[in-house]
Amino acid sequence: MPRKQVVTLTTDFGTSDHFVGVMKGVIININPDVELVDLCHNVNSYDVFDAAFTLAQSYRYFPSDTIHLVVIDPGVGTARRPILARTLEYKFVAPDNGVLSLIYEREETVEVRHITADHYFLNPVSSTFHARDIFSPVVGWLSKGVEVDKFGDPITDYVKFSSPKPKQVSENLIKGVTIKVDKFGNLITNITPQDVPQLFSDNPPPFKIVINSQEVTRLNLAYSMGKPSEIFAIVGSSGFLEICTNRGSAAKALNVTRGAEVGVMIESDAAGAPQG
Amino acid sequence: MPRKQVVTLTTDFGTSDHFVGVMKGVIININPDVELVDLCHNVNSYDVFDAAFTLAQSYRYFPSDTIHLVVIDPGVGTARRPILARTLEYKFVAPDNGVLSLIYEREETVEVRHITADHYFLNPVSSTFHARDIFSPVVGWLSKGVEVDKFGDPITDYVKFSSPKPKQVSENLIKGVTIKVDKFGNLITNITPQDVPQLFSDNPPPFKIVINSQEVTRLNLAYSMGKPSEIFAIVGSSGFLEICTNRGSAAKALNVTRGAEVGVMIESDAAGAPQG
Amino acid sequence: MPRKQVVTLTTDFGTSDHFVGVMKGVIININPDVELVDLCHNVNSYDVFDAAFTLAQSYRYFPSDTIHLVVIDPGVGTARRPILARTLEYKFVAPDNGVLSLIYEREETVEVRHITADHYFLNPVSSTFHARDIFSPVVGWLSKGVEVDKFGDPITDYVKFSSPKPKQVSENLIKGVTIKVDKFGNLITNITPQDVPQLFSDNPPPFKIVINSQEVTRLNLAYSMGKPSEIFAIVGSSGFLEICTNRGSAAKALNVTRGAEVGVMIESDAAGAPQG
Repeated sequence: MPRKQVVTLTTDFGTSDHFVGVMKGVIININPDVELVDLCHNVNSYDVFDAAFTLAQSYRYFPSDTIHLVVIDPGVGTARRPILARTLEYKFVAPDNGVLSLIYEREETVEVRHITADHYFLNPVSSTFHARDIFSPVVGWLSKGVEVDKFGDPITDYVKFSSPKPKQVSENLIKGVTIKVDKFGNLITNITPQDVPQLFSDNPPPFKIVINSQEVTRLNLAYSMGKPSEIFAIVGSSGFLEICTNRGSAAKALNVTRGAEVGVMIESDAAGAPQG
Repeated sequence: MPRKQVVTLTTDFGTSDHFVGVMKGVIININPDVELVDLCHNVNSYDVFDAAFTLAQSYRYFPSDTIHLVVIDPGVGTARRPILARTLEYKFVAPDNGVLSLIYEREETVEVRHITADHYFLNPVSSTFHARDIFSPVVGWLSKGVEVDKFGDPITDYVKFSSPKPKQVSENLIKGVTIKVDKFGNLITNITPQDVPQLFSDNPPPFKIVINSQEVTRLNLAYSMGKPSEIFAIVGSSGFLEICTNRGSAAKALNVTRGAEVGVMIESDAAGAPQG
Repeated sequence: MPRKQVVTLTTDFGTSDHFVGVMKGVIININPDVELVDLCHNVNSYDVFDAAFTLAQSYRYFPSDTIHLVVIDPGVGTARRPILARTLEYKFVAPDNGVLSLIYEREETVEVRHITADHYFLNPVSSTFHARDIFSPVVGWLSKGVEVDKFGDPITDYVKFSSPKPKQVSENLIKGVTIKVDKFGNLITNITPQDVPQLFSDNPPPFKIVINSQEVTRLNLAYSMGKPSEIFAIVGSSGFLEICTNRGSAAKALNVTRGAEVGVMIESDAAGAPQG
């Protein structure tokens, strides 16, 4: 028995409307043998970066040949193009608004096509719900084995943004930004251990992480190592520094949301001091 | 390989309890070869119309023979009947509280049965969770191929409400109502383009849409055509006029929820004026 | 065709992140023929009892041999063990923090193993997301038929708490506690009909249920039997007394959350009075 084609769905459609259910109906009406997996439907509304981040954290855990359908689409009904991207292992169907940028960044080989083959679309196509009328039927046919070149020609001018990178302000100061607040209120930054290797040395120097005028001076290995109401840093499962608190919301405690500046200051004396 | 029987689930049970999970367990315990699709579990609590609307917007996108299970059931444990409705293409299992009214309205042929065959129910039947004890096992058996006439006899006195229709108040004024606020805060009205054909003529007259004492005078083709914080109208994917704003919540901006009056006034001079 | 292995998922991960999607990716990457069923992902954050309750209300409705994966894991990254429990019909994979306590309480035969076979884990294992790195891959392999003894040795010192039991304070007073507020605002207590058999006798005496200084004196059979805004008791589908109101939230009306004391006072005169 051949493996079922896996399709993941990522949207900002929430779960209080018929939107996601209808997408699934359209797909399985075309291909009843598909395996649909909800990746996330509560991406922040209209937030292309949040969707890109969610997808980037997830797509490689799925089987080869998985089709990832991503619809965060504030430009629906305008000239923004529907696209189909293919990497060595995966396929992606999305609006061309940069939502696949982190895929382009992570993958060596990406081919992007402008989906123009409207005989695969529902008819008529609305101007407000292309997830139903364009993206889902394209995914349905794609999952049935229609070749990617049947959907449209390759393009190279697709929309791409760069993910925000931390900046080395001085030898002992690096500045980053919070890129996500997760369900627990953990603040995920864009700073990786590679950006602040001193903190992960055998004899790490004292440091301060400054966020919303508050200082975090402790790095823990696990959430539950934090003392009650202590705010500390951790290396999270996405590979980024997170600011968090044990069984509580660091975002609430610090009154911080996405996009906040985060400074990591290494104490210079200690950083250069000999051990012992 | 025969196609798997698709079953959709629509409830107001939310996602913070075991309710939906248990329903799925009961169904697949009876029929492991079923394909379960969540349509929506965040229908407004006890809101039969909201469920009816959600279902009406969705059911036809699913494959023929799909079974739609709908449980918004404030009358659980009372004399309200469990019913099984069949149209040419679909089957519906629900409490007889009007939740299928928009199906009755849209479909030419509907046969409705009172489900009485309690040997298909779980035993015992609670007085508070018929989704688990009656509706899900009936759907399980139905999806396995038990004929509809085995579940009970046809009835004709099932509960049916009429969907609210806009009213022509005068030649140039039509009044409708908001029937749904979607996840983005778009206000879906019950007014269709057919109700206000002037707005969609080649030379549309000026118009005012009045809602909560505020005036909307612009009709756009796509959400993103709106200027920042502008409130405008659009024809939404459900075929109704929506009041919305670009990347924001019209419901919040106008302080309006479901059930608000919406007046569309066509400027009479313009309406009758010759073109050119 | 052999039945697909059913796996249920219960977490406190919510639905606004990639966490649950990634878990599913990991599992189906190992075993594409698995049937994944979301039981609940909105368990209260870090709330082991809430997860235990959700699972206990659900697990027996699933087919024999279902694997129940439960990740409420505030101790992730510490010495708390990952465990695999087996009862006569089901398997459970979870952190050893007591989340399976109500299973231990309900099942006669439970074998619990400490999962140590790290060649089944993802590599590397993070210190913050064992759901992805340990629990999901173990479930993937388990669902493919790997024998339970391959994952680790039996243990007997697993963490177990007792569910809170109501206390008989005097002949006519029993005190319990609210153990759950459901989506509708119904307050589920830990008091069963067996604890207050007088209320279910042929000639039940007057009674008072006291909760947050308010008195409930009515027991109804169905939610919709309540008069507008009346607060009353009901025997809920979980087998416990619930405090509720018709089409509204008793939790809001009484300003009560989980953990509130609930006293049931039987009127002593009436209780002993002869019938007629």
